[in-house]
Amino acid sequence: MKKRSCVILASTGTVGQRLVYMLSQHPWFDIVDIAASKRSAGLKYKERLKDSWHLDVDIPEEIAEMKIKLTEPNEVEKADIAFSALPSKEAKQLELDFAKAGYFIQSKASAHRQDRDVPLIIPELNADHLELVKLQRDTKWSGAIVTDPNCTTVGLAMVLKPIYDEFGIKSVIANTWQAISGSGIPGVPGLLINDNVIPFIAGEEEKVESEVLKILGNLEKDSIINAGFPIASTCTRVPVTDGHFETLYINTKEKIEDIQKVEKILGDFKGIPEFLKYKENLTYAPKDPIIVRKEINRPQPRLDRLAGTVPGMAISVGRIRKGVDNSSINLCLISHNTIRGAAGASLLGAEMAIMKNYI
Amino acid sequence: MKKRSCVILASTGTVGQRLVYMLSQHPWFDIVDIAASKRSAGLKYKERLKDSWHLDVDIPEEIAEMKIKLTEPNEVEKADIAFSALPSKEAKQLELDFAKAGYFIQSKASAHRQDRDVPLIIPELNADHLELVKLQRDTKWSGAIVTDPNCTTVGLAMVLKPIYDEFGIKSVIANTWQAISGSGIPGVPGLLINDNVIPFIAGEEEKVESEVLKILGNLEKDSIINAGFPIASTCTRVPVTDGHFETLYINTKEKIEDIQKVEKILGDFKGIPEFLKYKENLTYAPKDPIIVRKEINRPQPRLDRLAGTVPGMAISVGRIRKGVDNSSINLCLISHNTIRGAAGASLLGAEMAIMKNYI
Amino acid sequence: MKKRSCVILASTGTVGQRLVYMLSQHPWFDIVDIAASKRSAGLKYKERLKDSWHLDVDIPEEIAEMKIKLTEPNEVEKADIAFSALPSKEAKQLELDFAKAGYFIQSKASAHRQDRDVPLIIPELNADHLELVKLQRDTKWSGAIVTDPNCTTVGLAMVLKPIYDEFGIKSVIANTWQAISGSGIPGVPGLLINDNVIPFIAGEEEKVESEVLKILGNLEKDSIINAGFPIASTCTRVPVTDGHFETLYINTKEKIEDIQKVEKILGDFKGIPEFLKYKENLTYAPKDPIIVRKEINRPQPRLDRLAGTVPGMAISVGRIRKGVDNSSINLCLISHNTIRGAAGASLLGAEMAIMKNYI
Amino acid sequence: MKKRSCVILASTGTVGQRLVYMLSQHPWFDIVDIAASKRSAGLKYKERLKDSWHLDVDIPEEIAEMKIKLTEPNEVEKADIAFSALPSKEAKQLELDFAKAGYFIQSKASAHRQDRDVPLIIPELNADHLELVKLQRDTKWSGAIVTDPNCTTVGLAMVLKPIYDEFGIKSVIANTWQAISGSGIPGVPGLLINDNVIPFIAGEEEKVESEVLKILGNLEKDSIINAGFPIASTCTRVPVTDGHFETLYINTKEKIEDIQKVEKILGDFKGIPEFLKYKENLTYAPKDPIIVRKEINRPQPRLDRLAGTVPGMAISVGRIRKGVDNSSINLCLISHNTIRGAAGASLLGAEMAIMKNYI
Repeated sequence: MKKRSCVILASTGTVGQRLVYMLSQHPWFDIVDIAASKRSAGLKYKERLKDSWHLDVDIPEEIAEMKIKLTEPNEVEKADIAFSALPSKEAKQLELDFAKAGYFIQSKASAHRQDRDVPLIIPELNADHLELVKLQRDTKWSGAIVTDPNCTTVGLAMVLKPIYDEFGIKSVIANTWQAISGSGIPGVPGLLINDNVIPFIAGEEEKVESEVLKILGNLEKDSIINAGFPIASTCTRVPVTDGHFETLYINTKEKIEDIQKVEKILGDFKGIPEFLKYKENLTYAPKDPIIVRKEINRPQPRLDRLAGTVPGMAISVGRIRKGVDNSSINLCLISHNTIRGAAGASLLGAEMAIMKNYI
Repeated sequence: MKKRSCVILASTGTVGQRLVYMLSQHPWFDIVDIAASKRSAGLKYKERLKDSWHLDVDIPEEIAEMKIKLTEPNEVEKADIAFSALPSKEAKQLELDFAKAGYFIQSKASAHRQDRDVPLIIPELNADHLELVKLQRDTKWSGAIVTDPNCTTVGLAMVLKPIYDEFGIKSVIANTWQAISGSGIPGVPGLLINDNVIPFIAGEEEKVESEVLKILGNLEKDSIINAGFPIASTCTRVPVTDGHFETLYINTKEKIEDIQKVEKILGDFKGIPEFLKYKENLTYAPKDPIIVRKEINRPQPRLDRLAGTVPGMAISVGRIRKGVDNSSINLCLISHNTIRGAAGASLLGAEMAIMKNYI
Repeated sequence: MKKRSCVILASTGTVGQRLVYMLSQHPWFDIVDIAASKRSAGLKYKERLKDSWHLDVDIPEEIAEMKIKLTEPNEVEKADIAFSALPSKEAKQLELDFAKAGYFIQSKASAHRQDRDVPLIIPELNADHLELVKLQRDTKWSGAIVTDPNCTTVGLAMVLKPIYDEFGIKSVIANTWQAISGSGIPGVPGLLINDNVIPFIAGEEEKVESEVLKILGNLEKDSIINAGFPIASTCTRVPVTDGHFETLYINTKEKIEDIQKVEKILGDFKGIPEFLKYKENLTYAPKDPIIVRKEINRPQPRLDRLAGTVPGMAISVGRIRKGVDNSSINLCLISHNTIRGAAGASLLGAEMAIMKNYI
Repeated sequence: MKKRSCVILASTGTVGQRLVYMLSQHPWFDIVDIAASKRSAGLKYKERLKDSWHLDVDIPEEIAEMKIKLTEPNEVEKADIAFSALPSKEAKQLELDFAKAGYFIQSKASAHRQDRDVPLIIPELNADHLELVKLQRDTKWSGAIVTDPNCTTVGLAMVLKPIYDEFGIKSVIANTWQAISGSGIPGVPGLLINDNVIPFIAGEEEKVESEVLKILGNLEKDSIINAGFPIASTCTRVPVTDGHFETLYINTKEKIEDIQKVEKILGDFKGIPEFLKYKENLTYAPKDPIIVRKEINRPQPRLDRLAGTVPGMAISVGRIRKGVDNSSINLCLISHNTIRGAAGASLLGAEMAIMKNYI
């Protein structure tokens, strides 16, 4: 396969650092430039991150020496893809600029997730939504904007999809125990989260509740018709480094006659047909996107966050039980927030777009 | 007031230690003996706990020198009250023995909580259930067994009570983030809980689900008619020292027209009339049993676990919102698991029983 | 006693919040104004701290409604004392301005600690150094600047003093396990400190090493002659909320014939004669400034940080052993970094200055 | 290479679990039996560990189905090697029994570490001490007992060796910040270590102080002549999952004229000649046993515990500074306590013994 050239926007942040590392190890991509804000532009990557690189692997040598560019289309190298880990506020305009300049933007930013013609992709669930890229190109620019969901959305959407298809969903009560890495650096102050639970994460509940519905929606003509059930969520931060734990209480349309059937459809889920066409070529797609744990005390962040044949890319589900009646399901899940929920999502998303010839 | 003599059963465990400290500071009680299992009997209290006292205040001097007795009615001093922090298995028979020997047992053990003639008391909610003591005395023994609820039950029951009385309850989805101190010592191993969430606590969900219904039940003639709604709970352990955080999603019978009304009835709740008769004499009753927080990111374990005019005896509630429809409420709460959920519950319970002349 | 009026500079930070709370409860002081930087000036205290008040007690009601002033002598009320929790950089000039304007500044900032005519006070150790205030007044201004040491210095200096006086000191190897609260808010990011140890705190080792020598120095005429031994320290941050743990390895000039003598002189230490003259009038002076623990596994932050008759104001010492030879001592200590190491130090310092009629 | 058959003693504990996993992945070894105490014997491995497997990778399938045997030479399969993770008390006799039965015992237990004819091996430092195996075989049995050091000893010994060889050592002051996994399961209770530092680990300081001297000793004829300098250590437990952090303050015999020379000899250290003969064949030997970090805030447990070309097998050193005089060195290090400090040490040790034809 021809390597795709790429640039990384916001390459110094927590997601940016992981993108830098993962892309440097990935055989399909060639990092031609790394960008960041004014504060960092002009510095060598290793100088800038001398005291704030946060991964437990070292900065890849070839990146360490690169000079950081300012995040502007005319400051960075022309490339096939711009991986964006920009803060939402800055992504708003900058991603438009890069799209106009012809980049295919694989974005972790929330800025354009709900734009009508921008797909919000989890390849296993809605690879077909990528079709919207054509609409963008027909109407707007030679580039494209494709978004990944919020880190908390991923586990939720992945687990709800097979249940939604099989039983229908009336409503969902979601609770989350979110890892600190989700807040980045500086993120949540150590003093506030040590020995504590913080029951609020700005904007998180709204994102989760709306993103799931778009992802589970149907592409009809030129737009996505959202799924139509309400979600009530409470998002909390807990003193855990990586791995979002979530509980879902799902009221279904159909009766659940046998709870083991729920286990089975979750364990058997491999992705929609449009995804399965390409699956074996996708290096970031884990063999099983959902792993069902039978142990009474699993999944747990420390034990299951790196689950899957591609570490950190599978969702682990457990404690699948009936709720208070015969049309309700109660379960727990873990997803790795900075891999499946961030950098890994971008890589898998870009792989998918490459497979479908959008890049 | 005449001081009541008391003995402490299982005085060396985590709850036992707190009972020792709190009772030693309490003007109504006189500790005449401390008991524990064979392993400890015969040792001075301070010798036994030389390396395992876990409170951040020292062992009270007068207790430090006491010799630990074996937990048998004929080994310990006769006393008005036996405060029991026994493991449930041992409590099963031993509490019967002590009741037969004439002790009023204020028990933290779960062994007899669901016995038909044993009251399960949160004074603010069901002080009237103490009436069952009479039944015990009429039919069984000169002593009595009165139980406190599980540490996780307390917050749940306290917050549900005013809502139950006002709107009726159809069902409750409860999630908990429980503190490590609830598991005692040794309890959950450090290696398993550090940087982790454990989504299972043996027996906890069953206890919570059944205890709430008994506490909110009505005393009719000689027994409690339980409240009649289902609860689905998921109980998890998180790396927090003290303070159980819980979220409740409550489906009500009546419509919630104005969510501020829910805030108001919670903030205004002071206890049932049978409790209010005695309240001002109860030193362990906080002025407000429920404190409503308005901040978007409260309650939090570290900030709110010691809330209340009696530190650790009030429940803090926050983030009171509508759920997915007009007859559902979503909220968060904190209760101190080893004070309101354990030793403090026993003291307040015993105070109430004294006020009502059962001791 | 006539109440002293006071203002609090940097009243919104972590130390500032604790000063606000403690001063509001203290019978000698009257808070007439609270100040902060431009970002906060003009806001009500409770509005400004609505989501970032970090104490587990609520904002005192009378302060909650006060309007925050800008930190300038002509913006805040005239008062007897200015308690300063300013960042060192800003303290540099601002404290001079307030001293010129006639305030007695009790400062937690490091800016002026090493100024030749500024005393660096731990009342038990060097209350006599306050004499330098006279020098300031004779030569510079009607106000005064008096400083408290760095939070890590306190435990070190307190424990070294009696040993220094008895055995002489040749050198000290110090290691610290410092609590997160020492870094304030935002301070060290949660992601960086969770499940981790960070072996560097900017500027800390230099401060500790130099401050101890000034505190243990002698006032001769118009200046302090520093103590003359070298200290080698390694300061680390650990995931603990409050309470600095430290180990000291002390090479002494005299032989230590009996290690129990070291225990004895530490346990017996009450303060220098100049301090003892006033001690019983000082409400923030704990009965014993040093508490010797005999348990093999003490002191510990969680158990000993609030030690003392004034909680958090005593230093706990334990594991007192010989080192590799007969003129070395190895020991551990705990001091509460935001009480004895910050706000409490300021209060005790101000009390001392009042007693000596400097305020 | 001919595969060596092996059995694992105490295969269900925390070290045993890691041995099971690592050996199952290692091409040189064939696990023919797994043993444990009476409580576990007879159960399938996966049944026994259903709720207590603690690694973040699953139990290897072929081991999952194996039946656990009782730890007795006549209960388990005959094999070339017995990897022992036995508690020291039980190892005392059982290891003798296995040695008599002809097994080469690679032991993590402390029981025989100080036996006169038992080598205590870190291959990079004293591979030549393996010669003692011959003495055992000449005088005692057909098997052998070879021991690995305590988890805390490894980092200390590895870093001291090149310094000892170059400058000589007069004395060492060591402080440790030890990870929770070192205490195993149940190990240190969660309640005691959360938000805390515990300044005592039973037996640890004695082990560290004596083991280092044996490892750095010289084999002369039939015994080891220990290195002759004193060590004073303080061992603490901190709330970190994996990775022991340590500081060393080293008084050297020779003057340190240039501290960069210390950095250089540490960074250049590859092992003694006897080790280098075999190094390239040893799959568990990291390319660099010591990694020198230049960043001011490294090494850190979370970032550096998995350092090295064989993850977890290299020691990271940083903050190399002079002490209070010209013949003292102050530095920090990290070593992975359950890899380099336990299971990995056993594998590398066994590889070395195979290379030297003792197995």
